[in-house]
Amino acid sequence: MRLKPLIASLAIVVSGTTFADEGMWQPHQLPDLESILKAKGLEIDAKSISKLTEFPMNAVISLGGCTASFVSPKGLVVTNHHCAYGSIQYNSTPENNILENGFLAKTPAEDLPAAPGSRVYVTETVTDVTKKVIKGTEKLSAKARYDALEKNEKALVAECEADKNYRCNVYSFHGGLEFYLIKSLEIKDVRLAYAPAMGVGKYGGDIDNWMWPRHTGDFSFYRAYVGKDGKPAEFSEENVPYVPESYLSVSAKGVQEGDFVMVTGYPGRTNRYRIAAEVDYVFNTSYPKAREHNSKYVALIEENSEDGSKARIAYESTIAGYNNYIKNYGSMIESFNKGTMYERKKQFEHDLTAWINSDRKRKKHYGSVLNDLSTLVAQSQQHNERDRMLGYVHRSQMISTARSLYRLAYEQQKPDSERESGYQQRDLPRFEAGLKRMSRRFDADVDKAILLHFLELYAALPKEERFAEVDKAFNLQNGFDKAKHSALLSKMYANSTLNDEDVRIALSQQSFTELEQNQDPFIQYAKAIFAVMKVEEDENKALTGKLQAARPQLMAAIIAYNKAQNKPVYADANSTLRVTYGTVGGYSPQDGLVATPFTTLEGLLAKNTDVDPFNAPEKLQQQIKAKIFGDYTGGMNTVPVNFLSNVDTTGGNSGSPTLNGKAELVGLLFDGVYESIIGDWDYNPALNRSIHVDSRYMLWVMDKVDNAQNLLDEMKIVK
Amino acid sequence: MRLKPLIASLAIVVSGTTFADEGMWQPHQLPDLESILKAKGLEIDAKSISKLTEFPMNAVISLGGCTASFVSPKGLVVTNHHCAYGSIQYNSTPENNILENGFLAKTPAEDLPAAPGSRVYVTETVTDVTKKVIKGTEKLSAKARYDALEKNEKALVAECEADKNYRCNVYSFHGGLEFYLIKSLEIKDVRLAYAPAMGVGKYGGDIDNWMWPRHTGDFSFYRAYVGKDGKPAEFSEENVPYVPESYLSVSAKGVQEGDFVMVTGYPGRTNRYRIAAEVDYVFNTSYPKAREHNSKYVALIEENSEDGSKARIAYESTIAGYNNYIKNYGSMIESFNKGTMYERKKQFEHDLTAWINSDRKRKKHYGSVLNDLSTLVAQSQQHNERDRMLGYVHRSQMISTARSLYRLAYEQQKPDSERESGYQQRDLPRFEAGLKRMSRRFDADVDKAILLHFLELYAALPKEERFAEVDKAFNLQNGFDKAKHSALLSKMYANSTLNDEDVRIALSQQSFTELEQNQDPFIQYAKAIFAVMKVEEDENKALTGKLQAARPQLMAAIIAYNKAQNKPVYADANSTLRVTYGTVGGYSPQDGLVATPFTTLEGLLAKNTDVDPFNAPEKLQQQIKAKIFGDYTGGMNTVPVNFLSNVDTTGGNSGSPTLNGKAELVGLLFDGVYESIIGDWDYNPALNRSIHVDSRYMLWVMDKVDNAQNLLDEMKIVK
Repeated sequence: MRLKPLIASLAIVVSGTTFADEGMWQPHQLPDLESILKAKGLEIDAKSISKLTEFPMNAVISLGGCTASFVSPKGLVVTNHHCAYGSIQYNSTPENNILENGFLAKTPAEDLPAAPGSRVYVTETVTDVTKKVIKGTEKLSAKARYDALEKNEKALVAECEADKNYRCNVYSFHGGLEFYLIKSLEIKDVRLAYAPAMGVGKYGGDIDNWMWPRHTGDFSFYRAYVGKDGKPAEFSEENVPYVPESYLSVSAKGVQEGDFVMVTGYPGRTNRYRIAAEVDYVFNTSYPKAREHNSKYVALIEENSEDGSKARIAYESTIAGYNNYIKNYGSMIESFNKGTMYERKKQFEHDLTAWINSDRKRKKHYGSVLNDLSTLVAQSQQHNERDRMLGYVHRSQMISTARSLYRLAYEQQKPDSERESGYQQRDLPRFEAGLKRMSRRFDADVDKAILLHFLELYAALPKEERFAEVDKAFNLQNGFDKAKHSALLSKMYANSTLNDEDVRIALSQQSFTELEQNQDPFIQYAKAIFAVMKVEEDENKALTGKLQAARPQLMAAIIAYNKAQNKPVYADANSTLRVTYGTVGGYSPQDGLVATPFTTLEGLLAKNTDVDPFNAPEKLQQQIKAKIFGDYTGGMNTVPVNFLSNVDTTGGNSGSPTLNGKAELVGLLFDGVYESIIGDWDYNPALNRSIHVDSRYMLWVMDKVDNAQNLLDEMKIVK
Repeated sequence: MRLKPLIASLAIVVSGTTFADEGMWQPHQLPDLESILKAKGLEIDAKSISKLTEFPMNAVISLGGCTASFVSPKGLVVTNHHCAYGSIQYNSTPENNILENGFLAKTPAEDLPAAPGSRVYVTETVTDVTKKVIKGTEKLSAKARYDALEKNEKALVAECEADKNYRCNVYSFHGGLEFYLIKSLEIKDVRLAYAPAMGVGKYGGDIDNWMWPRHTGDFSFYRAYVGKDGKPAEFSEENVPYVPESYLSVSAKGVQEGDFVMVTGYPGRTNRYRIAAEVDYVFNTSYPKAREHNSKYVALIEENSEDGSKARIAYESTIAGYNNYIKNYGSMIESFNKGTMYERKKQFEHDLTAWINSDRKRKKHYGSVLNDLSTLVAQSQQHNERDRMLGYVHRSQMISTARSLYRLAYEQQKPDSERESGYQQRDLPRFEAGLKRMSRRFDADVDKAILLHFLELYAALPKEERFAEVDKAFNLQNGFDKAKHSALLSKMYANSTLNDEDVRIALSQQSFTELEQNQDPFIQYAKAIFAVMKVEEDENKALTGKLQAARPQLMAAIIAYNKAQNKPVYADANSTLRVTYGTVGGYSPQDGLVATPFTTLEGLLAKNTDVDPFNAPEKLQQQIKAKIFGDYTGGMNTVPVNFLSNVDTTGGNSGSPTLNGKAELVGLLFDGVYESIIGDWDYNPALNRSIHVDSRYMLWVMDKVDNAQNLLDEMKIVK
């Protein structure tokens, strides 16, 4: 289970030899795990992995949302195809469809600019700023504490970002027990160097997403560029390839079943230390309802946009995103119902309480933490049905855009440092990108149909749960009437100009006073509910302030409890650099079935139908049929395509280098199996498997299919 | 491949030790295979299996469509739950829902009558009647040959059935190269002794149909009764349990991976010797079109009957049947497209031709057989699109009933022995059962909607392909008009009384002259097309007569070719008693996945949702949780539920006993895996796996769940 460091029966025992490979470790924790890592097969010094400015960690970089790594002295970066997808799409035209056919720059001069906003972040320092962040907050509570923490964090970030070459963030660990300031070099000129064809990079598509067996060549190459002075610079013809401090060698030998592997990367978010009451609510209420409403959301899009129509095309990525969530929720609910997570949480809380109560000092210190947190959790769930339904109402792009514009104008009345996060100067490029994105992802009929549906569900809530301001704005005081409300919404859409990009951009420049006068019905709605929503928000911040005080207390108790048993504790993922290690191996997804750890070229061919998404390029198929395997078999009779391991990863790890015991790149992490989706909550040693694209397949495609010898030449290939 | 005896690379080499376990052997062939059987693990004398009146073959019986076996000296019969399903359903009432809850007769006196028409057939003699069947046909051709063969066969059957205790049939082997008269004791009083709950016997339902992993307890028990004189008798309170010549012991030890198993039973039909041109047509035209039209058929039923309505309930079994076909066709098309059957057929025909042509005598004898057959096959495909569409039109239950009634009256003008098969005296009980069945499976709106759809497709055929009589009857001379034809059909349905069971039964008693006067619009349609359909039928019979002459010639060539290579040839399945043997083992359904040979109680529990069809009885679940395994583990740490083997089986084998090397019952054959569906055409050693319910699970359920100690006591259990 994901709480394993907390559970004796599954515990990591530093002195032992058998243990599950759970844990997303902060690099500085690795020396503590050295004996395990060595026993498993790490050949390099564990201490070197703990130092961010040394090999191999300084070769591991973030793309913001994905992970990547340097693989040549000329700034060549390898990541997943799905992480570079936007940049490939951005450069694709009907005449030169590189998304479909792939792309290779034969020299760096042919590199193509990545999608606007693409960045490479090289983490340079990680500083414990806990004292600075909590300074002056000790006596505060509720909203005051929340605000004070925000202020301290913003000040640290602003100070750090005084050097314009860096992006800085304060990250909270263990629910606010520790805070680290992470300073990363921000490389702004990123270019596309090579992407295989869609029939390699996205082989299996959404059908195979989260699935094993898998045959996806999910890799692509960027190149990082800097100014002639070696410092980050915006795109310019004058820029030169960035020379990284170090880069990874790539193995042509690959791994075998049972081999040690480790993955370094930026996992996004996990919830492994949530209490039983939270887990109960999420899996028995929140996820089932989300699945239900999201399924309806997709159905409404499909019912209100004809297959192949402009409207449908606008929503394709929205549908794909929702379907991915629906699949995720489905898997997690299924795993939860089959598994024992809830019972183990209850048991753990029972054991922890017993341990706390068995010592007077501990009892005094931690005696109430579990109860305190439980009370706050119960409070936070009080209006969840209302918040859920209003949340869906406010997903209408007309409403969410109106509210964002109104809020932006409101925040801009304050000095930048006091503005709400998301509305500061540093956030404006992203804000504008969002306003522009709507042009490609919006259809008024679809938006209205969704709004109407969720308005009906909102209106069905008991009156005391509803907001009078919302009721008034939508004329719901006397209930919902489908025909009447459909007409009312139609009028609002007809009278609004927010679907015009120029209007949106123009409104984002207006002052709060100007916007208050604006007669757009959606801006008027934003205005009408602004005050009451602000009250709600402040109440939530107050509650968050209390949680930010209570949760670290519980985590401190948990850490002390584990320390007493000589067990290290890793923090939940929070988009910071982590290391996870494990072993190459299969699993049994069901009684009567075994997933074997490797897939092969022959398996890819057997799966191929020549119909998207199972349409490998003709040349690739020919090379398989001709058994042109090159030096990429690693002793097998074929070239392995993907492999499984039990490393502990989650979203954000995509593109992470998978390293062998010598820190050579043997693959790229790109997905987990269906049964591992619940892994964000609970690591199950029997079922948690990550999926990697094998370095042998990557090199084979480059060498035998796409003739990317120029790139292979600048890389260091270990044969 | 299924043609393995024909293909050198996969051939059974009697002296060798490695070979695929393909082949549905006639018992008399087994002594020829003795060295293989012994090497694989047969411990009893191969000759004993070749004798129908000796153990174990005299314990293996047919239920007509399914196989079963005697397992006690008191006439106790074990077969699949799905083979006894009709009888369980027949005895089930809302008050005593034995289908849902299961049934156990604590003494034979509590046995329940099986569904009307249930029979147990004990094969007593198999006589080669080739000479008698072809006597006088040698010089004939086309329809004359067809008629002469029919006449000879009917005479043999009539002579054999002079003893009313027997049911006799003439079966053709190798496409008419050999004919055998099979004489079976017909036990007419069959009763239900025990059936587990639906949540055991049909666990997994249609979802798991053809699937692995599987956890279905597909077993039930009948008891055969005879008159006090020991001879077959209709149901009577006075009847006594039948004492079989022998019965099978049941193993509580079961099998392990790699163990020898053999399956004896009545496989229905295979097509392993069809020529390349036939395979091409079936997989590239016939099956894809059948899948398309059958999917539409199901959609039409669903569109025209509301979920849960009386109409929908009437069509549930029809829908299930069609969906099963759709799944089958889908699997077969998929396997065909992935596989190499067509290429291997072509290669075989090429090799066979070379072998024939390499010898003057052979050339003279067999030189033209492949060409002759190819020409006839091409002829038979000439009007296939017309035949297909008219076939769907005539599936309307109103039309098919009208045509059957009209034909019955027509045939009854002749002496019984000259009547068309299906309309003879011996067929009448089944005919009447069909007329009655329609009452439970018919809805006029659904029937009309289906008829209208296929009438439109029929009308779209070129005029020269259509029948003027059909066009006239449906007023299609000037094309199809949906509104107009819908009205025309509505009128026909309104004016017909064929949907009344009493009317149908009454019409089945009428003379031809009476029926000709009948004004029912569907009877009138049957009359209007009768003459032209008869011409068609006679032409088809003429073609069949030619095929009946040509195909045995090719088979003779194939057998000679194989004999030259010392390879025995088994005949295509034809519902006669066969033996197949093989090994317990898993397979790889796809690259990256392995199906392991056993499923377990724990796997069943993990799959259980308490929602049909994954709703095992509470007691069964409790016994698993309490690890009450009894003496049914066979050395495993659990009780195995189902297992896989590579024996060569098909529909009709359902319920067949699976025997170990000592001829002890170790399981019941009940299904094949998805990848084996194409097995009717092509045996693929890598993918062809049969699914068996493990005898240990059967005994465990009887002992630990259903308290069927009374049955266990009368059986011989090998511990």
